[in-house]
Amino acid sequence: MLSALELARRIEAGELTPRAVVEMCAEAIAAREGEIGAFTAFDIDGARRIADSFASLPLRGLPVGMKDIFDTVDFPTAYGFSPYAGHQPKADAAMVMAVRRAGGVILGKTVTTELASLQPAGTRNPHNAAHTPGGSSSGSAAAIAAGMLPISFGSQTGGSVIRPAAFCGIAGYKPSFRLMPTVGMKAFSWSLDTVGVFGAGVEDVAFAAATSTGRDLRIDDSVPNAPTIALLRTHLWSEATPDMQAAVERAAHAAEAAGARVTELVLPEIFEDAIRNHGIVQDYEAFRALAYEYDRHREKLGPILTEQLGKAAAITTDQYDEARRATRRTRQTFADLMAKTDVILTPSAPGAAPHGLGATGKPTFNRLWTLLGPPCVNVPGLKDGSGLPLGVQIVGRFARDKVALGAARYLEAALARAT
Amino acid sequence: MLSALELARRIEAGELTPRAVVEMCAEAIAAREGEIGAFTAFDIDGARRIADSFASLPLRGLPVGMKDIFDTVDFPTAYGFSPYAGHQPKADAAMVMAVRRAGGVILGKTVTTELASLQPAGTRNPHNAAHTPGGSSSGSAAAIAAGMLPISFGSQTGGSVIRPAAFCGIAGYKPSFRLMPTVGMKAFSWSLDTVGVFGAGVEDVAFAAATSTGRDLRIDDSVPNAPTIALLRTHLWSEATPDMQAAVERAAHAAEAAGARVTELVLPEIFEDAIRNHGIVQDYEAFRALAYEYDRHREKLGPILTEQLGKAAAITTDQYDEARRATRRTRQTFADLMAKTDVILTPSAPGAAPHGLGATGKPTFNRLWTLLGPPCVNVPGLKDGSGLPLGVQIVGRFARDKVALGAARYLEAALARAT
Repeated sequence: MLSALELARRIEAGELTPRAVVEMCAEAIAAREGEIGAFTAFDIDGARRIADSFASLPLRGLPVGMKDIFDTVDFPTAYGFSPYAGHQPKADAAMVMAVRRAGGVILGKTVTTELASLQPAGTRNPHNAAHTPGGSSSGSAAAIAAGMLPISFGSQTGGSVIRPAAFCGIAGYKPSFRLMPTVGMKAFSWSLDTVGVFGAGVEDVAFAAATSTGRDLRIDDSVPNAPTIALLRTHLWSEATPDMQAAVERAAHAAEAAGARVTELVLPEIFEDAIRNHGIVQDYEAFRALAYEYDRHREKLGPILTEQLGKAAAITTDQYDEARRATRRTRQTFADLMAKTDVILTPSAPGAAPHGLGATGKPTFNRLWTLLGPPCVNVPGLKDGSGLPLGVQIVGRFARDKVALGAARYLEAALARAT
Repeated sequence: MLSALELARRIEAGELTPRAVVEMCAEAIAAREGEIGAFTAFDIDGARRIADSFASLPLRGLPVGMKDIFDTVDFPTAYGFSPYAGHQPKADAAMVMAVRRAGGVILGKTVTTELASLQPAGTRNPHNAAHTPGGSSSGSAAAIAAGMLPISFGSQTGGSVIRPAAFCGIAGYKPSFRLMPTVGMKAFSWSLDTVGVFGAGVEDVAFAAATSTGRDLRIDDSVPNAPTIALLRTHLWSEATPDMQAAVERAAHAAEAAGARVTELVLPEIFEDAIRNHGIVQDYEAFRALAYEYDRHREKLGPILTEQLGKAAAITTDQYDEARRATRRTRQTFADLMAKTDVILTPSAPGAAPHGLGATGKPTFNRLWTLLGPPCVNVPGLKDGSGLPLGVQIVGRFARDKVALGAARYLEAALARAT
């Protein structure tokens, strides 16, 4: 894989040109893209032409992939939905402009599931092409894992950043809600849609997030303090595979061995309603955000999204309002709980990437966090018996993203030492 | 003016066809649009063809105007910015679909200021064509005042619903933040952009909001209770003209005479920072939401928006984060204050519509409320010495929109009896 941070450092030091990084991506794309199918479009020649002119900017002319739900004027943007094939937006999305302003080069658009839903696209997992890479940010995660890009952006409404990062064995970072703008990104659920970042390791996603937002999020310039980590199994623990349960325990032990203080956390019962409330908020809003697609192009929609939106039509405003009120209460309880710990350690997904391309896996261990809005990081480094990646998740306090990234980096290093 | 509620009732009773309402609009458009310039596009023939088929739906086939920052597939959508002239979106905005699903007929798109900023467009005030109609929802407000439409939608980021409603002598309703979806609406500031509704009177905007959202917001089916109203002058009182000060006092007296309990409210000092915080949040986000326009089409932007975005570039993330934290604190203080009253009565604008078309007036008395997010209603019915409308504003508790609309209706009726 390509470490964005290391590449940026070498460019800064004059040891490497941005154009040479484009060639690395081009080689990996030539070797892997035919099998993986991570891109909807890419422009290597365009990136070659302009990359070197951005070498002095924060993102150093590094190639970046954007999930194909972000509007781009220079690449078609189809949102993973056939009626929009060839659509050329009139403006770049805010996050696309943020990348360009910081000196990133948009090398291509990456495959999204249909309108960022659970309806899969054809991207394959670089660790085993018979397995899903996860979704909905399928291409963004697979392109990093296959070494075709050093940085990519995606989005999470259920578990669409953390889950594919876990399945692909890379770092994925879902920032605190609204840390990155969703303007110009196809909406699914306005209370939940969250922009996220993918990279080879935790320092890479922190670097990409820091440079593209102008925020103090880099964690590579100092040794992180040993964090306090609360191991959280949740009431859904039995839905995690034995491999995943063992991975989380192993991560806790590795962190403890490295010097972290590890405690255990049990959530109050109020949190058990969160998945249901997430579904109500998400689907009520999706029925409205995707009204045009559902009412005017229903015959083009896949069966998963059609069924989801059909059921969503029956959700009442009272149910929606009550789910939002309950969420506010749960968010407050969560803030109180987090006064005692720096971060939570919990599964990123129920297990490794499922076999087959007919589904993208379950957001079971993500929906609570998307609903509450705190920063989440998938920490790579563990594998199951068959060699597929297993991701564990660090969840931080709202708006304390740097602490969460630092703790994730700490755990990543501890796992590297332990294996 | 055309009362949406009365027209809907007559259609429901079989006394009127939706198509006949289209003809009323067509006549007013033929008589007034040349002078007023409220529309960027309209399609009377299209409305004639389809209106009657919606007679049994909640909006009864009534003609509706959408501010030209809402994406529409069947009208060009230019966001008030010349590089987008002729742009045909690929999907309808969520609010456009909400209107269509409820049986409203989009008769046309209404003039917005440049990208919904303070940079004026050419629309004139129907009460005196030498005066501004206010902005940024200039066309939406003017079309109602000129009797060219019974319902229109706009948006408010600073004061863009309440101010033009006040200047045009009509009802304007800014719902609680996120009550209506902004998906598919051109963004200016994602923490502030709020969809709003215009109509002839308070019952009309309540009817339009209720039918388009499926929410219990109608206030015409029962006699509203006498509300508790807190008269609020704010520390900006001296920026209101003597006419406006007198109008607010007169409204308070009329409400009291009608049976309302009127108290006085003085805001704690924390509220005095709100205008500054509103500016920081708005401009920090606008620099990112309008990045493409500012970076790629700067020479096409008007001087007001160019200067605003140029200054916005210097706002730091720390300033932005602090403004958001302060806003959360102010919002909590506001919620506590409002435990003692149903609604607040305060000016909608500093005075009547200013002379000239070079500016759209000031959002002085709106920015606090857009920042805090509670429902606001402009109550029409008062005039200054020259016959121009003076609007007074009812502000309610967050998510208690029906109470705010009921109190506004109560005040509207009290003013009608008093004059």
